[in-house]
Amino acid sequence: MSFQIAIGPRIRKSPFYNSTVKAGVSHFTTYNHMYMPVSYGDPQAEYDRLMNGVDMRDVAGQRQVSLKGPDALELARLLTPRNLDNLTPGVGKYVPMTNSIGTLINDPVLLQVEDDEIWLSIADSDMKFWAEGVAVAKGLNVQVFEPDVSPLAIQGPKADDVVASLLGDWIRDVRYFGFSKTELDGIPLVVARSGWSKQGGFEFYLCDSSRGDELWDKVAEAGKPYGIGPGGPNYIERVESGLISVNADTDDWANPFEMGMGKFMDLDQDVDFIGKAALKTIKAEGIRRRFCGLIMDGEPFKSTNSHQCPVTMNGDYVGFASALAYSPRLEWNISTALISTEAADHGKDLLVDTEYGMRQAVVTSLPFRRENA
Amino acid sequence: MSFQIAIGPRIRKSPFYNSTVKAGVSHFTTYNHMYMPVSYGDPQAEYDRLMNGVDMRDVAGQRQVSLKGPDALELARLLTPRNLDNLTPGVGKYVPMTNSIGTLINDPVLLQVEDDEIWLSIADSDMKFWAEGVAVAKGLNVQVFEPDVSPLAIQGPKADDVVASLLGDWIRDVRYFGFSKTELDGIPLVVARSGWSKQGGFEFYLCDSSRGDELWDKVAEAGKPYGIGPGGPNYIERVESGLISVNADTDDWANPFEMGMGKFMDLDQDVDFIGKAALKTIKAEGIRRRFCGLIMDGEPFKSTNSHQCPVTMNGDYVGFASALAYSPRLEWNISTALISTEAADHGKDLLVDTEYGMRQAVVTSLPFRRENA
Repeated sequence: MSFQIAIGPRIRKSPFYNSTVKAGVSHFTTYNHMYMPVSYGDPQAEYDRLMNGVDMRDVAGQRQVSLKGPDALELARLLTPRNLDNLTPGVGKYVPMTNSIGTLINDPVLLQVEDDEIWLSIADSDMKFWAEGVAVAKGLNVQVFEPDVSPLAIQGPKADDVVASLLGDWIRDVRYFGFSKTELDGIPLVVARSGWSKQGGFEFYLCDSSRGDELWDKVAEAGKPYGIGPGGPNYIERVESGLISVNADTDDWANPFEMGMGKFMDLDQDVDFIGKAALKTIKAEGIRRRFCGLIMDGEPFKSTNSHQCPVTMNGDYVGFASALAYSPRLEWNISTALISTEAADHGKDLLVDTEYGMRQAVVTSLPFRRENA
Repeated sequence: MSFQIAIGPRIRKSPFYNSTVKAGVSHFTTYNHMYMPVSYGDPQAEYDRLMNGVDMRDVAGQRQVSLKGPDALELARLLTPRNLDNLTPGVGKYVPMTNSIGTLINDPVLLQVEDDEIWLSIADSDMKFWAEGVAVAKGLNVQVFEPDVSPLAIQGPKADDVVASLLGDWIRDVRYFGFSKTELDGIPLVVARSGWSKQGGFEFYLCDSSRGDELWDKVAEAGKPYGIGPGGPNYIERVESGLISVNADTDDWANPFEMGMGKFMDLDQDVDFIGKAALKTIKAEGIRRRFCGLIMDGEPFKSTNSHQCPVTMNGDYVGFASALAYSPRLEWNISTALISTEAADHGKDLLVDTEYGMRQAVVTSLPFRRENA
């Protein structure tokens, strides 16, 4: 079943939009009110590039929420259970965000780009409104806005070579989540070792949207010797790697403990961040569900899934499988899932109601590894 | 240029999704993290049905934000410049929402469905987070959540006949924005005389998402004698009627005065709603831009526009045309636009840089009328 996407003025074009069209984009999704390419019509080649070479991705939809002003850090502290005491200049931090009942509502990377300015590089929900709502009601001295910043990701084992050829060999020493302001032939950038894959690489946070096509061309040109090609957030690789996609993998009640994010939270800090009381209760009572991997039997899935799939054990509903894919590397049908701790501990006798019929499943930890099966 | 939309678990399916697929949906957009049909492949027939007959629309993407609890009304008052003193049970209210700098961020219809529960039936931005952020930071005694409520719209001059045949002739006496709780063969609904067109009609707020296909079938069956067929938010009619689409017609600085919403605001009320100080300043200084209509020369537009189009006067940028269409009824090329008051007052000598080339334009009031040209 395939449908066209209506292209209109309500949803924004990325600064790389024209370049992605020229590069042959075939499928879009929307992300933070912006069209985002997810495929160029050859999923196999896109997967291979990411695993063995290098791809370039228009991920401008990963918008920034800027907190700017004397109270920027105070506001940031209210917005995440993560302890921000030791925020290091030039090092990003993964910061789960929760609402008042402790539900995970976004999981951005936080970048302190100036003494008085913090960016939240967000997943797909309007954290601008969340942050400003809190700031206004608290009377904090901070502006909340979306700056003109649009990431272009370069991912895969050869990403370092491409980025080094553009910016110099110093980037090879940048640590994971390390970032710095720089420029490329006068194009203002923040370069960060990050990206939504586990294959390594960088994100170029373009800081002037009028120069998107120019940046795209420079990266494409520098990547030629390494076989670079366009890609999108890679569905198969993200399932293999167990990367979380908020709203795909979560629901209105999923909390960060269920999602395996305990290590990113500090409930004992003095800061009265949003969700603190609820998360303390959840921690004391123990979680009822756990985010994990499923390995399923039967014919290889021909495609990915279009909706969350119910999981049952002995006829009882125990949760849902969130993202299904056939892994060419593992030669398994795999899925991320959020299921009861009882089912996750039992680890077998599960049935998943997929678009390809009912499948038997066993549980495994994430990321998927041959030796864990 | 046409592209496919990726259908995956991150963006939600409407309760009417399967029915719209069966009905032959061809184009989707996304709206509040949900797939929303915009065309079934025959724009001419869809326009004709709306203007002369009746259509049915899956607008479940128009989600509700529920404010529930003792402080629900107090929270609602903080969220809109509209005076809510005389909220009448069973009558909805159009409530612009602004941020702290007075920018229009959403324009929902507010429905008080219980003494302690208010729904905001929202346009496409996460007002759930905005409302909860404010509520949490203010310590208000109110829950903010998205209830299981999904509107199905029935629009067009024959909509009353269809709805009367389903619910009874009493619905003919319901006033504009009037609503009431009811049921249809046991399916729980709120029925309201509303909808995003000026051709009249109703919205069925389905209150049990498991019964979407059942409701769809009942409406389709009852509508047969009246030639009902599927449709989406109609691009041409909405431009003709001058209906506002937040984010399509607005930008990060558009305020409700610019958008012609002065009559929906009360800056003198005691309530310290968000944006009050900024709006007072804007009112005192006068607006710099005005939302208006443009009539353009040249060949009829073959399609709608994919992005906002720059407008110039004597070579100077004066604003943007937001939604372009050829009106078969008026036999004009038309567009909504947000341009400088100077250009709007001058009314002519404008150039619009469209996807169909440069077009000359004159200004008119909204909605478009032959006699105003």
